[in-house]
Amino acid sequence: MRNFTYQNGTKLIFGKDTEKLVGHEIAQYTTKVLLHYGGGSIKKTKLYETVLTSLNNANIEVIELPGVQPNPRLSLVHEGIKMCREQNITFILAVGGGSVIDSAKAIAAGVPYEGDVWDLFCGTPITKDCLPVGTILTIPAAGSETSSGSVITNEENGLKRSCGHSSMRPVFSILNPELTYTLPMYQTACGIADMLAHVLERYFTNEPSVDVTDRLCEATMKAIIKNGRRVMNDPMNYDLRAELMLAGMIAHNGSLDVGRLGDWASHELEHELSGQYDIAHGAGLAIIFPAWMKFVYKHDVQRFAQFGHRVFDLEINLNNLEETALRAIECLEHFFKELNLPTRFTEAHLPTDEIELLAQKLVSHCESVGNFVKIYKEDALAIYQLAL
Amino acid sequence: MRNFTYQNGTKLIFGKDTEKLVGHEIAQYTTKVLLHYGGGSIKKTKLYETVLTSLNNANIEVIELPGVQPNPRLSLVHEGIKMCREQNITFILAVGGGSVIDSAKAIAAGVPYEGDVWDLFCGTPITKDCLPVGTILTIPAAGSETSSGSVITNEENGLKRSCGHSSMRPVFSILNPELTYTLPMYQTACGIADMLAHVLERYFTNEPSVDVTDRLCEATMKAIIKNGRRVMNDPMNYDLRAELMLAGMIAHNGSLDVGRLGDWASHELEHELSGQYDIAHGAGLAIIFPAWMKFVYKHDVQRFAQFGHRVFDLEINLNNLEETALRAIECLEHFFKELNLPTRFTEAHLPTDEIELLAQKLVSHCESVGNFVKIYKEDALAIYQLAL
Repeated sequence: MRNFTYQNGTKLIFGKDTEKLVGHEIAQYTTKVLLHYGGGSIKKTKLYETVLTSLNNANIEVIELPGVQPNPRLSLVHEGIKMCREQNITFILAVGGGSVIDSAKAIAAGVPYEGDVWDLFCGTPITKDCLPVGTILTIPAAGSETSSGSVITNEENGLKRSCGHSSMRPVFSILNPELTYTLPMYQTACGIADMLAHVLERYFTNEPSVDVTDRLCEATMKAIIKNGRRVMNDPMNYDLRAELMLAGMIAHNGSLDVGRLGDWASHELEHELSGQYDIAHGAGLAIIFPAWMKFVYKHDVQRFAQFGHRVFDLEINLNNLEETALRAIECLEHFFKELNLPTRFTEAHLPTDEIELLAQKLVSHCESVGNFVKIYKEDALAIYQLAL
Repeated sequence: MRNFTYQNGTKLIFGKDTEKLVGHEIAQYTTKVLLHYGGGSIKKTKLYETVLTSLNNANIEVIELPGVQPNPRLSLVHEGIKMCREQNITFILAVGGGSVIDSAKAIAAGVPYEGDVWDLFCGTPITKDCLPVGTILTIPAAGSETSSGSVITNEENGLKRSCGHSSMRPVFSILNPELTYTLPMYQTACGIADMLAHVLERYFTNEPSVDVTDRLCEATMKAIIKNGRRVMNDPMNYDLRAELMLAGMIAHNGSLDVGRLGDWASHELEHELSGQYDIAHGAGLAIIFPAWMKFVYKHDVQRFAQFGHRVFDLEINLNNLEETALRAIECLEHFFKELNLPTRFTEAHLPTDEIELLAQKLVSHCESVGNFVKIYKEDALAIYQLAL
């Protein structure tokens, strides 16, 4: 087990009707807030009115910045930073899914930074604390509600890049599973794939002696798979929605990978897909992860067999661990199919003749990606090939 | 799943040599610290010198208060409060196990409170933030290093009582598994029983739809049992010590029981034992928990069967769940025996003719204890009887 430091002070407020507490929470920080959200969905569901009422009751002035799109864009982040600076706004409330929260975090990081905020997504370290961000989560998926990171797409060059800082963790996050009842099934499925991928990235490590965190990862994956399957046929079930919302948070709050180094190649490989083709991140991960597994499983057959045994209840073939490992990968791919997600480029109607470009972009900012197995350009090409 | 709020901002600093960072951490808060510890063990291991060197290098003035005993005493807490007030000390560093940390937390709560700090352990709510506490943990057991609670024994009346407040969580905790190499095997075993009991208290709940946290509890218990067994024969193994130190923290940091209501009757039943007879808390729990289980298992046979199946890998007897439940309790009792812990009053050389007094004390401050099953005086008597 590696040495580690872990601190996550995000206040979680979980359960029915909790969005009504938002004004009370923010009043502890400020009297003026940037309300950041996406399209009209929060207006359709009346969440917008509930939030405004709560903020008004707490005497908080509201400046709105709607318009966040999936794979959130740098241009809107720039606009938010300008608004905060010009109007002396010192708190950002994100109401939405991971895209809205990531956009809010990028604004929060950009306001105190003198240069272009995109620098922070290209390797410039964050040295000044971000503005505080609060969230009301509507899509369990990205885990951004308690994570210290943000992913932004620069629409000028199609690059999707991440950055992180301890001060980027939201000061509070409100999670009401009822708010996810109206999520379309495709988005629900993409969210399930995303949260499962967050655990998988942490699970595949070369660190020996990680028994506690292995088991916590397996527990979280089993719960995601079980409740994920059920919610597809029972989307208005509070308990199922609650389990998934809790699991999605745990999957990415950093607690599952203390003392170990995760992989993250699949996320990098996927970011080229969603950066280039604007496919939902979770769908991209359902395409990339099985292909990545097929490419790397021989690196640690035992770990893949353990994954199959403990997560999918496969009996271990002691005479042929490789067979168990391959069945585990099949199980994962099959689970994504059960969610009606694509697991191939063709199923998602993505071009199959541009993988050279994707691989080229991937290594444009680093020689290789991934820690479990280092993926160089030719490896990336092979993985994209396996996913066509 | 219940609505919940969860926030745990303790900064964890985990791994080899991390105790050397203590001066740097404290310098962010103060230039004068109360160094609180137990007997001479930290001097024997040179931890004392390492800590003083780190504090001196960070120009931090050190006022010492040693002498914390197992089942920490109210009188020393009173002394610490007086010292902090008279010498304007605003930060407490606890170096030791749960007793030292609990004593430090009680001092931290008592300094800003006008009345007698014992009031706070008798139901008076804490309304003022406690002084900040930092810890260097030497015994993985109580989980006090990230918890919001403290347990103190009033030696005048033999009462052992707890209190809690969000501001009681340490601001940082340093966990170096190497510091636990020299723990006597009995204390190691008591620590393992204590951390396992913390998960069990959370596991036995009447709350339906707690799949994620059930699985996280089971994962943690499996890891405690596996690594606990091994460490008994291999006490200088860093990896085993690290898994246990991590598990002990997770068992009691509050993350395993979000959205559910734990039981805690066994802890209350045990507090009468260690309050009265000064037995180690973990040993007391090894005596009480199997007896409590035998008394209550019929309340939810399915949950006990699930416990046996998922934690001890028992095959479920579908025609007789009760048989599986009883085997699960046997497995737990057997595990405690493997650790060379007593599982009966007689094995711990406790008097067997005073259980009426224990039960009387238990209900002196409340009508019943426990949430999974309410335990009244006559139930407590029956449980003590089962444990004789």
